[in-house]
Amino acid sequence: MSTTPSPAGPRFELLGQDGKARRGRLQLPHGTVETPAFMPVGTRGAVRGALDREDLLQTGSTLILANAFHLMLRPGAERIARLGGLHTFMGWDGPILADSGGFQTFSLAAQCHIEETGARFRSPVDGSEFMLSPERSMEVQQLLGVDIRTVMDECTPYPVTETQARESMQRSLRWAERSQRACGPDGILFGIVQGGMYPQLRQDSLEGLLAMGLDGYAIGGLSVGESREQMLTVLEYVLPRLPARQPRYLMGAGTPLDIATAVCCGTDLFDCVLPTRNARNGHLYTSTGILRIRNAVYRDDPAPVDADCDCLACRTSSRAYLHHLDRCGEMLAARLGTLHNLHYYQRLMRQLRESIAQGTSTAVLARIARLYAASAGTNALQKSAAAAPPQP
Amino acid sequence: MSTTPSPAGPRFELLGQDGKARRGRLQLPHGTVETPAFMPVGTRGAVRGALDREDLLQTGSTLILANAFHLMLRPGAERIARLGGLHTFMGWDGPILADSGGFQTFSLAAQCHIEETGARFRSPVDGSEFMLSPERSMEVQQLLGVDIRTVMDECTPYPVTETQARESMQRSLRWAERSQRACGPDGILFGIVQGGMYPQLRQDSLEGLLAMGLDGYAIGGLSVGESREQMLTVLEYVLPRLPARQPRYLMGAGTPLDIATAVCCGTDLFDCVLPTRNARNGHLYTSTGILRIRNAVYRDDPAPVDADCDCLACRTSSRAYLHHLDRCGEMLAARLGTLHNLHYYQRLMRQLRESIAQGTSTAVLARIARLYAASAGTNALQKSAAAAPPQP
Repeated sequence: MSTTPSPAGPRFELLGQDGKARRGRLQLPHGTVETPAFMPVGTRGAVRGALDREDLLQTGSTLILANAFHLMLRPGAERIARLGGLHTFMGWDGPILADSGGFQTFSLAAQCHIEETGARFRSPVDGSEFMLSPERSMEVQQLLGVDIRTVMDECTPYPVTETQARESMQRSLRWAERSQRACGPDGILFGIVQGGMYPQLRQDSLEGLLAMGLDGYAIGGLSVGESREQMLTVLEYVLPRLPARQPRYLMGAGTPLDIATAVCCGTDLFDCVLPTRNARNGHLYTSTGILRIRNAVYRDDPAPVDADCDCLACRTSSRAYLHHLDRCGEMLAARLGTLHNLHYYQRLMRQLRESIAQGTSTAVLARIARLYAASAGTNALQKSAAAAPPQP
Repeated sequence: MSTTPSPAGPRFELLGQDGKARRGRLQLPHGTVETPAFMPVGTRGAVRGALDREDLLQTGSTLILANAFHLMLRPGAERIARLGGLHTFMGWDGPILADSGGFQTFSLAAQCHIEETGARFRSPVDGSEFMLSPERSMEVQQLLGVDIRTVMDECTPYPVTETQARESMQRSLRWAERSQRACGPDGILFGIVQGGMYPQLRQDSLEGLLAMGLDGYAIGGLSVGESREQMLTVLEYVLPRLPARQPRYLMGAGTPLDIATAVCCGTDLFDCVLPTRNARNGHLYTSTGILRIRNAVYRDDPAPVDADCDCLACRTSSRAYLHHLDRCGEMLAARLGTLHNLHYYQRLMRQLRESIAQGTSTAVLARIARLYAASAGTNALQKSAAAAPPQP
């Protein structure tokens, strides 16, 4: 039941399905990833919140995301290569997927000018100008030595006109072809389906990418301000049109409900800053909904954040202690909160994987939907997540 | 060879001596401390740098310091007591020594007015006025449930006239007596020798405290801006006059050289913010001297901070990676640096303990003296440590 899209490609086995939900196993140079899987975001070569490698493993994370754009600026891709590659540099010997830098055409749009050659940026580090072309992005990702590279694309903003979305998508397709040529046959390369909210453009994008025969397919241009219904419409359109035997990655999503929904639509891979960023802002995920640890009601609460959780924070700390640490600005508040939230996300992924094997994935989705519909804090959180400026 | 100063007192065994240096074992309600020992500073119920309990144990720390002043303000001593005491609150089941709040009469002098009743403070948390009397300090420390309490005193600043130092020392003696009465027979209580740089005042202070029959003796009013020679003069005067069979604690010191020196003079216990604060500022202690990780020379350095160190940072991270994390402001830089520096301090303490058993403590002192004399960075560091405003 396995397939290898190309000799250099990842070995992706489909282990089972439940409706459209897929249970899989992705074999990569640095290890095996059980899917559906969630990638913590290690933008600058570290997952924020002072997490070390052991902490990440404790959360159940197996695959992490790094950012080619930020690492090429600081400390520099050539430097990381000289130091033995990103795995050695950051002391993480598990699989790593790199974002190409395409997301920064959206998140740093004010400092970015798109040309046919590539994206011309003003560096957020030192203000200097530089060009991130598909060729340079591939070179950077190769220097980093990541397990999965992604094509350089333009992350189409929302809202845009159909004409703008088409131009952007078509350029992304041309960039994908240049990315593939630059990547060569030895790298594992994922394409990125663009096209905004326009089904025909999504269709054109995925047909173009499928013709190239890439190793996996990401869905980009979502989690950029559109509604959940719009995201779901795009997912339901794109996912069934992707090859069943290759991994599918929804970029930048999302809330637990977004993820459970997308898994039930047939998505395999996810990344999002929500669990780590929310932890630093005191929003903690629990089996009974969102807990805002800054709320004064927790000052005297001896209970753990979640009695059902066995993360380091819940094993050792009360809500009262975490509330106190947060009030004092102690880094330990961010670290324990981040450990907890990633643990929550990874447990959700494990539950989703198990439920697919057992044919009960829609029951998990229904539970998550009820939970976050019932949690008074959720809507506000989702609004605040949507309103927050995108992380560069 | 053991003695118990009072039925409620700590069991302190003197295991051996090497010159004036002492090897001991201090048995406390929450565990045993091998001396000489260094206490990491956990002012607000956490050691800064996002260290959890396991991290602290990994550094070799067995006894930590907490601050009655800061904890009574936030989250409140009564609250901590309701939550099961400080050990439960912060998830640390080893011994804890509390600072009485006396140090804040020095570090927060601008917000403090000394009266016979106690020290009247303006709260650094909310600006409200409150009185920290000896009775209240004892009550706070009892509510925290710490293993070792310290008398409420006034930390005499430097420089002061002999008259000022005498008045301050005499008031501290009266406060010590009130502290002892308030503490009752069940608590383990350390006195604090004051008297500034004046030998006769130090003599008067320690005679007054010795007459009270306390469980251990701290030397206060040092590390407040005086020279190393002055500190040494006071230590060499006070230490031989303290009872041999009770623990001796040099408050707030110091650099590795300060500590090695004071151990060789017969000191048993230490606390200092230097290893943790310096870590956050990128000053790392190594077996070959101070390493300033922010220096651009480390950008490309694949070596660990210290090839002779087996801390988490040195096992997993290069200087180049730590330099990068520090430049990016990633919390992980502070955490790994703090783990490293505390590991260094605790290894030094272990070496000192072993050297006392082997009769080679002066050789360790000579090595440390050579090391920090040779390290170009040291003088500047010590100057900067002296110049830095005291941590409140």
